[in-house]
Amino acid sequence: MKKGRVTIPTDASFVEGTKEIAAKWGADAVRDCDGTVLPANVAELAEKVYNTYFVVRGDNEWAERHPEETHRTFLMSERVIAETRVLEIDVMKGYFAQQIAPDWDHLSYWEVVDRTTGKTVSDWKADAARGKVVLENAEEMHEYTVGFMALVIWHPVQIYNYLTNNWTCAKQKMYDPAFPNTAEYIKRHMREWCEAHPETNVVRFTTFLYQFTLIFNEKGKEKYVDWFGYGLSVSPALLDAFEKEYGYKMRAEDFIDGGCYANPFRVPNRKILDYMDFVSRFVTKTIGELVNIVHENGKEAMMFLGDDWIGAEPYGKYFGDMNLDAVVGSVGGGVTVRMLSEIPHVKYHEGRFLPYFFPDTFFDGNEENAVRELDRNWTTARRAMMRKPLDRMGFGGYLSLAAKFPKFVDRVTEICDEFRMIVDAAGSAKPYSGITVAVLNCWGKQRSWMSHMVAHELWYQQIYSYQGILESLSGLAVEVKFISFDDVRAGIDKDIDVIINAGDAMTAYSGGENWNDEKVVATLRKWVREGHGFIGVGEPTAFVKDGRTFVLADVLGVDKEIGFTLSADKYNIEKKAHFITEDISGAVDYGEGMKNVYALDGADVLDIEFSDRFRRNVNVGEVKLAANICGKGRGVYIAGLPYSPENARLLYRAVYWSAGKETEMKKAFSSNLLTECTYYPETGKYAVVNNDAGEQKTVFYDIEGRAKELVLAPAEVCWIKK
Amino acid sequence: MKKGRVTIPTDASFVEGTKEIAAKWGADAVRDCDGTVLPANVAELAEKVYNTYFVVRGDNEWAERHPEETHRTFLMSERVIAETRVLEIDVMKGYFAQQIAPDWDHLSYWEVVDRTTGKTVSDWKADAARGKVVLENAEEMHEYTVGFMALVIWHPVQIYNYLTNNWTCAKQKMYDPAFPNTAEYIKRHMREWCEAHPETNVVRFTTFLYQFTLIFNEKGKEKYVDWFGYGLSVSPALLDAFEKEYGYKMRAEDFIDGGCYANPFRVPNRKILDYMDFVSRFVTKTIGELVNIVHENGKEAMMFLGDDWIGAEPYGKYFGDMNLDAVVGSVGGGVTVRMLSEIPHVKYHEGRFLPYFFPDTFFDGNEENAVRELDRNWTTARRAMMRKPLDRMGFGGYLSLAAKFPKFVDRVTEICDEFRMIVDAAGSAKPYSGITVAVLNCWGKQRSWMSHMVAHELWYQQIYSYQGILESLSGLAVEVKFISFDDVRAGIDKDIDVIINAGDAMTAYSGGENWNDEKVVATLRKWVREGHGFIGVGEPTAFVKDGRTFVLADVLGVDKEIGFTLSADKYNIEKKAHFITEDISGAVDYGEGMKNVYALDGADVLDIEFSDRFRRNVNVGEVKLAANICGKGRGVYIAGLPYSPENARLLYRAVYWSAGKETEMKKAFSSNLLTECTYYPETGKYAVVNNDAGEQKTVFYDIEGRAKELVLAPAEVCWIKK
Repeated sequence: MKKGRVTIPTDASFVEGTKEIAAKWGADAVRDCDGTVLPANVAELAEKVYNTYFVVRGDNEWAERHPEETHRTFLMSERVIAETRVLEIDVMKGYFAQQIAPDWDHLSYWEVVDRTTGKTVSDWKADAARGKVVLENAEEMHEYTVGFMALVIWHPVQIYNYLTNNWTCAKQKMYDPAFPNTAEYIKRHMREWCEAHPETNVVRFTTFLYQFTLIFNEKGKEKYVDWFGYGLSVSPALLDAFEKEYGYKMRAEDFIDGGCYANPFRVPNRKILDYMDFVSRFVTKTIGELVNIVHENGKEAMMFLGDDWIGAEPYGKYFGDMNLDAVVGSVGGGVTVRMLSEIPHVKYHEGRFLPYFFPDTFFDGNEENAVRELDRNWTTARRAMMRKPLDRMGFGGYLSLAAKFPKFVDRVTEICDEFRMIVDAAGSAKPYSGITVAVLNCWGKQRSWMSHMVAHELWYQQIYSYQGILESLSGLAVEVKFISFDDVRAGIDKDIDVIINAGDAMTAYSGGENWNDEKVVATLRKWVREGHGFIGVGEPTAFVKDGRTFVLADVLGVDKEIGFTLSADKYNIEKKAHFITEDISGAVDYGEGMKNVYALDGADVLDIEFSDRFRRNVNVGEVKLAANICGKGRGVYIAGLPYSPENARLLYRAVYWSAGKETEMKKAFSSNLLTECTYYPETGKYAVVNNDAGEQKTVFYDIEGRAKELVLAPAEVCWIKK
Repeated sequence: MKKGRVTIPTDASFVEGTKEIAAKWGADAVRDCDGTVLPANVAELAEKVYNTYFVVRGDNEWAERHPEETHRTFLMSERVIAETRVLEIDVMKGYFAQQIAPDWDHLSYWEVVDRTTGKTVSDWKADAARGKVVLENAEEMHEYTVGFMALVIWHPVQIYNYLTNNWTCAKQKMYDPAFPNTAEYIKRHMREWCEAHPETNVVRFTTFLYQFTLIFNEKGKEKYVDWFGYGLSVSPALLDAFEKEYGYKMRAEDFIDGGCYANPFRVPNRKILDYMDFVSRFVTKTIGELVNIVHENGKEAMMFLGDDWIGAEPYGKYFGDMNLDAVVGSVGGGVTVRMLSEIPHVKYHEGRFLPYFFPDTFFDGNEENAVRELDRNWTTARRAMMRKPLDRMGFGGYLSLAAKFPKFVDRVTEICDEFRMIVDAAGSAKPYSGITVAVLNCWGKQRSWMSHMVAHELWYQQIYSYQGILESLSGLAVEVKFISFDDVRAGIDKDIDVIINAGDAMTAYSGGENWNDEKVVATLRKWVREGHGFIGVGEPTAFVKDGRTFVLADVLGVDKEIGFTLSADKYNIEKKAHFITEDISGAVDYGEGMKNVYALDGADVLDIEFSDRFRRNVNVGEVKLAANICGKGRGVYIAGLPYSPENARLLYRAVYWSAGKETEMKKAFSSNLLTECTYYPETGKYAVVNNDAGEQKTVFYDIEGRAKELVLAPAEVCWIKK
């Protein structure tokens, strides 16, 4: 199998080992890693050398010379109840004094809010010496918070690594090129660095200007994390420039948002969208200039999708302006593969696979587990790769550790070969999709493959039942788009067959007040009735109004009982067999599911749970899955959809049924739900993939619907030429 | 054991049997029943004879002479999506044409609502011949409903009995004394009836003027039921009189409420409260006149709490104006006992116990089950009776059926004796209460012991986790009050130690927008901090605002995550032992429970459930029970509290702990949670009751806290004289 498409870590103490492994895996690039130094002769090791580059940290000397140019953030103090007229609030209580410090020099940006009335209070004083804000005329028993501007005095990601790994190196301070001195400095530094690193082919930016929101508590533990948060992209320089351009001021509360910090689960308002646009333009313009310097020095610029990536918005309007050559990011599963592999405007996309070559996995006696983690990561990611492969893969950590596990090294060898095979087979055209599915939420295209995420790739009890939808879609033979409510208002794209709306009520993923917009509602109703599909998961189209919870209950065939219509009898409780559930034996896993959903008359109940308690009337039974004919179109409701092969198949069938194309499903299809089929018209190849660790039998259907039995070895990709 | 306090059914065919059983049970009253005729010599059978009386039905001849004076209701048509500009809505679709008919003669009261915009539409015509409302200019894809006035042409309760029991008798029509002819007629009829029934001592009104809302669907099955609903107390006569008095009009939509029909789970608005007040004054004034006639004829007037009881509001402002002598109602458990036994302004309260003497229970071979049902009903009700006994008990159905089960007859004999013993021991003073608890909701005192009920005594999945609170309280040694948010605004009564707020978010039981009232919030915060207790169940104090779901999170120590603050870490997840859970071994039953509740820092987590799924961070774990110190006061959160002996004890402990009186709990107390102790200071007696069907050991503590071991026989009431 030919070489290439693989990046491995290396360091000065493992030169010969690197060469051996590079040969086995066909690696053509080497990279440095946190805590490692590239060998002197690194250029001999591979065709390409990646080198990590930090824009806004790493030069403490500069930071200390310009402390006024550090990053800022708006934080909310703890909530304090006024027990007396005079109320003192210790703004730093609960925060990590090594990370942040109140910016007492910029009090004009601060705000005190009476949370009991929701109103801003003007009657307060700051007592910097004592770290307090003092209200002289607090309303008794009202709850107050101070929204304060804080200096960021230690880079949040370094704090995490530092405290987790007991580092003792210097604490990296930050500097923001929104300020004039740093604006000049970062260009100068970029030039000097390029000159000083002739061996580097690829500048791996880690990352740009503004870190995602990551705030620590008084014990140095994570207090608040939002991988999408613009909270650390504020400063007097940015706020003033914004006001000058937009003609209005951003308030502290716009960012603080009652402690929700305008996170992506919040329905974004105009001000926040304006500010994101503003920051994005500043970041992309600034980084574009650095990339020019990189290019002038004959190097490539690669963005790490993480850390200080705020404002770069890979699916945003300005991403292309940076002229980046590549992106790299970590791969946790199918969603992260697609999030990376579909980023436009770059020449190549690289994924960093698991496990990291770190001692927590690579210790004596743990080889089996390391291989298992590798297989699990690869199999999950591979589904998505079949649809839209990354261009390159890589690993991180200490290569010398991995080298001690020969079975692991051999398995990576196989995977690298398989990876190159997939990339070749896929060609440059899209694989076959029988259907186009659009995910509808407040963010649309700008947050493609990014919905329902809090911290990057972390599991939260409240999100996995929604994340499973994207994880399922990432490997299904459907075209996937992401659309916003504005896209609906503007007219739904002709190519879309099915729209999915999924999320908790009033979140940006469900849509909140957008469902109170007659334009959105009427447009979607018409579109469905004309012959399209609409799939709702969780609390889709939720906006409590006029006796309904789900505004498109008429489409979904279900509504949610929130206690207002208990008096109305609900008789539609009989479970029916259906195309959607044909491949499911046993119970469907709805994850956290959804309580109190009932079917309207006329809908088909596909799954319903009854209370095992005493029941004396019919108002018992919670619908978990329903299908509804609506004009020429169809609606489907699913209570929750964590990822599993069963649920991916259930969604695939729901997509086909709701689009009214169920007779076309068995084309380029594999019957066994532990297997999946992808067809590449450009190269004329089919890949039937066994996602399971055991041997599987399946019936393969080609694009004409001709069936053939197959037996697949564990985890096999079976290639079939047309 | 002496005679009295017991009412039995009788009929013409069972005279001798009635005498025998009356002697055994000590019955001093006989009554007729649906489908039975009193014997000619009925006065010889008992001291008192009850006779059923209907005010607004039963005389079809009158009804047919004045069809224009029948009852009306406002109903919402089905929801129809406008697929074209011209939209026709069949108003009767889904309704039972034998029950209701559109009142085409009163179109001025009708309304068409565009549910997509929430606005009323004026551009429509009625086509009575075709039963349709026609819109000529509907907005495409908007959802429309017609709110129409309908004539009630068959009494809803008779419909139910008629269809359920396959009756063939005449269908009872209705007539409303809000109209002039019927107003005269009902007085005349009352006089004539009294004269025609000299044997009757007690006129058992079943009931007054307006039936609770009970609407049937096109198949004659229940479509909508609200035991509290004023929906059938509308008519042009009432609406016009209301407008004249209040100076504003009630609209159809005020009653229809988007299909919620202003049911008691809805936070009541001013208009609905005005209308209820208006109807209540009309009902009580009208019935007061009939009661005068009854009294003039030397008879007593008894109200059956059910059927057409709307506007009588036993805990309302005008109930006393009727001068009723008694109330009677069915007893399903402790809550219904207290709901009946605490009704003011009447001389005595009677409960009708289960089982009914009907063939569905009293068939050959079912004697054991009949006794079991009797015991279960009695034991559940008895807890409440110990606190506030009814004055009389009774049974319904065919006495001849019960007489065939000698074991059943004997057990009733015992129960009647036990009942009289309890009434005597209780005396006229209240039993000892260590604490006063107030249940806070939008209805307050007016709906004492009536919260979280849909249809009377029926089980619904969405309510039993709240109903258990009242069921627990009904037998606990605490004083129970019911207060409204207006009561809080006016200043919380001095005697209250603990306030309970329980319900789903935005319902009248939780409180909805009342929690956005700074006066309510500040008053309660101050009151708790001064040293009182606040217990929240389900979604207490919920009003989503400024990053909080529970407005009094500071008091409760918990809040609910609804997807807006997933980014904030939640570290308080360690379960602690506590006074509140001391008697609980094993898992607590929270019923439907509550998802996504987390503890604030500083609160004590008493119970938490962790997902059994993959967990990689700390944002996992749902708090089910928490305790929180708040100033000198205390807050407790409980996810749900269906009734069980364990949960009653848990609530008792939560009440004592939150009041800061935990050291005083073991006074007039029985340690075994399957037993309970009541102390009657007036008669100096303690009753230690075994609520269990098995023998139980317990430690009894007298009012001074002196302990003594007891062994209680199954279901025993052990009387201890001071």
